[in-house]
Amino acid sequence: MDFNIIRCGRAVLHVTDLERSKAFYEALGFVITESDSDCVYLRGLEEHNHHSLLLKEKDEPVVEAISYKVYSDEDLDQLAGHFESEGTTVKWLEKGSQHALGRAFRIQDPQGLPVEFYAEMDSVERLLQRYNLYKGAKVQRIDHFNCAVKDVQQSYDYYINELGFACSEYTIDDKENIWAAWLHRKPSVHDVAFMNSVGPRLHHIGFWLKDPMSLIDGCDVLASMGYAKNIERGPGRHGLSNAFFLYLRDPDGHRIELYNGDYLTSDPDFKPIKWDLNDPLRQTFWGHEAPDSWFDEASIVLDVHTGEPVETGEPKLKKTKPQFMI
Amino acid sequence: MDFNIIRCGRAVLHVTDLERSKAFYEALGFVITESDSDCVYLRGLEEHNHHSLLLKEKDEPVVEAISYKVYSDEDLDQLAGHFESEGTTVKWLEKGSQHALGRAFRIQDPQGLPVEFYAEMDSVERLLQRYNLYKGAKVQRIDHFNCAVKDVQQSYDYYINELGFACSEYTIDDKENIWAAWLHRKPSVHDVAFMNSVGPRLHHIGFWLKDPMSLIDGCDVLASMGYAKNIERGPGRHGLSNAFFLYLRDPDGHRIELYNGDYLTSDPDFKPIKWDLNDPLRQTFWGHEAPDSWFDEASIVLDVHTGEPVETGEPKLKKTKPQFMI
Amino acid sequence: MDFNIIRCGRAVLHVTDLERSKAFYEALGFVITESDSDCVYLRGLEEHNHHSLLLKEKDEPVVEAISYKVYSDEDLDQLAGHFESEGTTVKWLEKGSQHALGRAFRIQDPQGLPVEFYAEMDSVERLLQRYNLYKGAKVQRIDHFNCAVKDVQQSYDYYINELGFACSEYTIDDKENIWAAWLHRKPSVHDVAFMNSVGPRLHHIGFWLKDPMSLIDGCDVLASMGYAKNIERGPGRHGLSNAFFLYLRDPDGHRIELYNGDYLTSDPDFKPIKWDLNDPLRQTFWGHEAPDSWFDEASIVLDVHTGEPVETGEPKLKKTKPQFMI
Amino acid sequence: MDFNIIRCGRAVLHVTDLERSKAFYEALGFVITESDSDCVYLRGLEEHNHHSLLLKEKDEPVVEAISYKVYSDEDLDQLAGHFESEGTTVKWLEKGSQHALGRAFRIQDPQGLPVEFYAEMDSVERLLQRYNLYKGAKVQRIDHFNCAVKDVQQSYDYYINELGFACSEYTIDDKENIWAAWLHRKPSVHDVAFMNSVGPRLHHIGFWLKDPMSLIDGCDVLASMGYAKNIERGPGRHGLSNAFFLYLRDPDGHRIELYNGDYLTSDPDFKPIKWDLNDPLRQTFWGHEAPDSWFDEASIVLDVHTGEPVETGEPKLKKTKPQFMI
Ligand SMILES: [Ca+2]
Ligand SMILES: [Fe+2]
Ligand SMILES: [Fe+2]
Ligand SMILES: [Fe+2]
Ligand SMILES: [Fe+2]
Repeated sequence: MDFNIIRCGRAVLHVTDLERSKAFYEALGFVITESDSDCVYLRGLEEHNHHSLLLKEKDEPVVEAISYKVYSDEDLDQLAGHFESEGTTVKWLEKGSQHALGRAFRIQDPQGLPVEFYAEMDSVERLLQRYNLYKGAKVQRIDHFNCAVKDVQQSYDYYINELGFACSEYTIDDKENIWAAWLHRKPSVHDVAFMNSVGPRLHHIGFWLKDPMSLIDGCDVLASMGYAKNIERGPGRHGLSNAFFLYLRDPDGHRIELYNGDYLTSDPDFKPIKWDLNDPLRQTFWGHEAPDSWFDEASIVLDVHTGEPVETGEPKLKKTKPQFMI
Repeated sequence: MDFNIIRCGRAVLHVTDLERSKAFYEALGFVITESDSDCVYLRGLEEHNHHSLLLKEKDEPVVEAISYKVYSDEDLDQLAGHFESEGTTVKWLEKGSQHALGRAFRIQDPQGLPVEFYAEMDSVERLLQRYNLYKGAKVQRIDHFNCAVKDVQQSYDYYINELGFACSEYTIDDKENIWAAWLHRKPSVHDVAFMNSVGPRLHHIGFWLKDPMSLIDGCDVLASMGYAKNIERGPGRHGLSNAFFLYLRDPDGHRIELYNGDYLTSDPDFKPIKWDLNDPLRQTFWGHEAPDSWFDEASIVLDVHTGEPVETGEPKLKKTKPQFMI
Repeated sequence: MDFNIIRCGRAVLHVTDLERSKAFYEALGFVITESDSDCVYLRGLEEHNHHSLLLKEKDEPVVEAISYKVYSDEDLDQLAGHFESEGTTVKWLEKGSQHALGRAFRIQDPQGLPVEFYAEMDSVERLLQRYNLYKGAKVQRIDHFNCAVKDVQQSYDYYINELGFACSEYTIDDKENIWAAWLHRKPSVHDVAFMNSVGPRLHHIGFWLKDPMSLIDGCDVLASMGYAKNIERGPGRHGLSNAFFLYLRDPDGHRIELYNGDYLTSDPDFKPIKWDLNDPLRQTFWGHEAPDSWFDEASIVLDVHTGEPVETGEPKLKKTKPQFMI
Repeated sequence: MDFNIIRCGRAVLHVTDLERSKAFYEALGFVITESDSDCVYLRGLEEHNHHSLLLKEKDEPVVEAISYKVYSDEDLDQLAGHFESEGTTVKWLEKGSQHALGRAFRIQDPQGLPVEFYAEMDSVERLLQRYNLYKGAKVQRIDHFNCAVKDVQQSYDYYINELGFACSEYTIDDKENIWAAWLHRKPSVHDVAFMNSVGPRLHHIGFWLKDPMSLIDGCDVLASMGYAKNIERGPGRHGLSNAFFLYLRDPDGHRIELYNGDYLTSDPDFKPIKWDLNDPLRQTFWGHEAPDSWFDEASIVLDVHTGEPVETGEPKLKKTKPQFMI
């Protein structure tokens, strides 16, 4: 099946102090497309769509939705039809109900993640060559979502077989169970990754940088502005995905990854790369340990229908820190 | 129309001294997959297919073919059928007739370029994380072909309407004629570019680097090995495509571009970027002039049926150095 | 002899439109320590002294002085005494007569360059770790002066034998005449270079960058702000000095070099590196040609006593473009 | 006092498996000047002297000496005379007794460190522009020694007042005691640092890299060769010294720092930078914690007279992990 999902598109996060969050993301190098007293719309320097990160000021710092862009409104209708035909309740958000976005719908995916699809978002000026506006880590574009789920095998099957994603890399435990999987629609390593953990939760949102030095520059700028404590892990390189990475916690604890070092995954004969859970090069190619917080903490997600937090549960496969996710 | 062309795949070049060429490309940072007394098969560090550049020792330094990879053998048949239905002669090269390649066919495109399509190439070890093997400019993968043609408008129409390419950027002259166009199948700036010039000729083959420093390193390594004279232009940045570029001439004069700085072009609502021919930032964002050789010289191509050089002719639009191509 | 000259310290340039110059140098990544309607005081990010570049608005874009810092006021007196004893007229500028500077004196050196010495300059906040203030090419500190003189051998002898400089690298013509020489007091490649040319003139002032990517970033930022035309040469690497360089022309044509890639020259047993004038790797390691302007144009200097432009004359050694200076 | 000490010069380390160590340092990017069955002589790419690191195969992995280069043999004699006059026993090693080195002498410094001085070392080809020989982290030159001593105040006084070093940065505890100090002869941040810890021990030897990307490249190359476990800490930035750093453990546990990001400390009016021991930006500007091993482990040093290990003792100031040294 193929519903012309193009790529991961945006995330909608709730934050508890909008000004504080706005200052953080601006320091990090995001472009502020628009902001008012309730919301901030952020995008990367090469993005021609209105935003890839929407922050709403609310009481609890949770995840309202992670969103994928589809090719056309027709594809959107077909995809909604597919969900309904398999018994998944579709919640439509008509055009005009969300600022700068066309009509969209949301579902709770089989593992409980709040997922949104849309085909249309307002165009804005792309700032790729406005180098004098670059700052911080010079965030270029949204790259992927990383999700903690209880049953990775189920997410893997669903996203590949039902939604047409392809797998670039995956991790197995010593019984050959799928522990984690990196799935893509655009020909990069991933649009979404799923890891075996307490779920459903959003572990992080990855943003792509133009080069490794932008990541180093980002560290220096953040530290000089008092954000050193927001740097949780890295810089380092993952064996899995070959990413040169940095993990940050925003003022509410939402985790952002800065990411560079991907490769092209366009080919049908590209064989997904298999990693053993205990391969020491998998998690961190250079051999560093991640802090406990990185393994234990992730953002709670909302139910798209009730607006209430989705209860989390223990993962299907036994958790083995520190190798359990990337 | 869409025949599931995935991406540009390989180029087949004739060189007059194989050992000399092999030494050059190895210094530049290509991986040598295989070589014998007649041929050298080269690939980039992240490539999982057998080669992206095939050098054959011959009397004349010409271009035998530029090749695109399609999704499946079925797509290949449909594409061949399409060419035949429009009256284009298809020359099949059955599996086994070309080393490491499945069945393929070649056509002469409307502007006279020798174009090959294939779905299958042998898989080899991907060396992306074998950093101890990196050298020179650390060439990662093939990115695009840049072709000089007499009638860009015709190539533009044909590749978009007949073959399903999309346009990312283009240049117009003062009468709004299309002077040059950047077309893609994979969601990067281009798999192929066409420029108004004496054609048909191959201007250069672009290879993607992992970061800007690899390009600087490449210059230093080449110079230290006596290849300074092979550096024709750059490093610099194109306004068009935002590429951080370096142009090299191989020992036979074939031009290779090292390239970093692309952006994602996945979205149907991405509006192609229009440049005026005389916008000084278009050609070289930083304002340098290119040498005359860069404007005047390009590789002669062969007729896929006769094996003879294709005669070139004057371009349709009046040539205006130095703005005529990128 | 050794008068405890520490390093090159500052340059005093006349510019014809202060606001225009201020905008340019700020875009380039200088810190503005102070400015008023007549003057702008600029420094690099790691500099703890008040300024390394002083711009004064005047009718003609000339060089008022190039200045060296000596260890102490006592050294300053001894150096002044030395000049007087050899018959060189010393012009004292008492403390208070120049903003932010202690007492200083100026002389016209044997080749006619206006040279100033001082021991004391006001201290200001060093911004090295204020990364959020970094911009443009992130200029770190003054590195060297490059001067065109009629008789390099004389400057070479004078600065080494009379003033205690050491030579790191030099160029000879085919008759073993010294064509150019790189001399230092601090243990870098140079504080001052002299080249055989129409002189006396100031060819450029070199500023040190923290890394090669800052130079690339500088190009991008300048171009995005409309300063592409101010980029005269580079980026490239000199064989001589191993510098990764960029040459810029300020709005009045004064030439600024951005520079990275030096080495340590602390050792008395370091043998000066000799280059042949016609070694193609000497000027530009990567093999590019410099534009004519780079060879032909340089800034006129003033007489420290009369305040009038110093008349220039033809160099002693026959000029041979393009190899005549670096 | 000033005995014309130029810079830190070399370290002499004992290793237990010469082949294993040689392989490690070669992977790291050192140049092997010479090696035989007992010794390996290593240098950086820009070094014109024979070696900056000498490894001798012995039973115990200890430090035989850390060495400083002085300006001339005359200075060497004066320095030896000074030590003798203050009652320090000088052990001369005549020319010919150490390969590639002129006459030298060794002393045990007041805190028990084995220190050597020499004026002359054989010259070898400098490989700075032999970029095709660059590999690993592309080590450029020795930069500094970092020593754990029981009484930093005493080392501080001795090296500044007796040997003519200058202080660039220092750390104080909450009672204003000097906890650590960075001292230099060459105008960089340091030739030697002293930290309050179990001493005397050698904490690490710092080597200078040409740019930050060389450090990242070094990590990738080491990891790809199976040395990921040898990476102990970093990459990161120290607030103190502004270094972009990586700490490695060689196969015997000797610690090597790769280092980039220094600044010029030539000026007498440069005010040493004071850091509070508990300033979170001091140790690691970006906020990461160092592993326990980094705080607890360091190399035992030998007595220059007996050849026996020097007994270590508790530091004078109370140890407070994790802030106790850098
Ligand atoms: Ca120079
Ligand atoms: Fe990620
Ligand atoms: Fe290109
Ligand atoms: Fe210069
Ligand atoms: Fe250190």
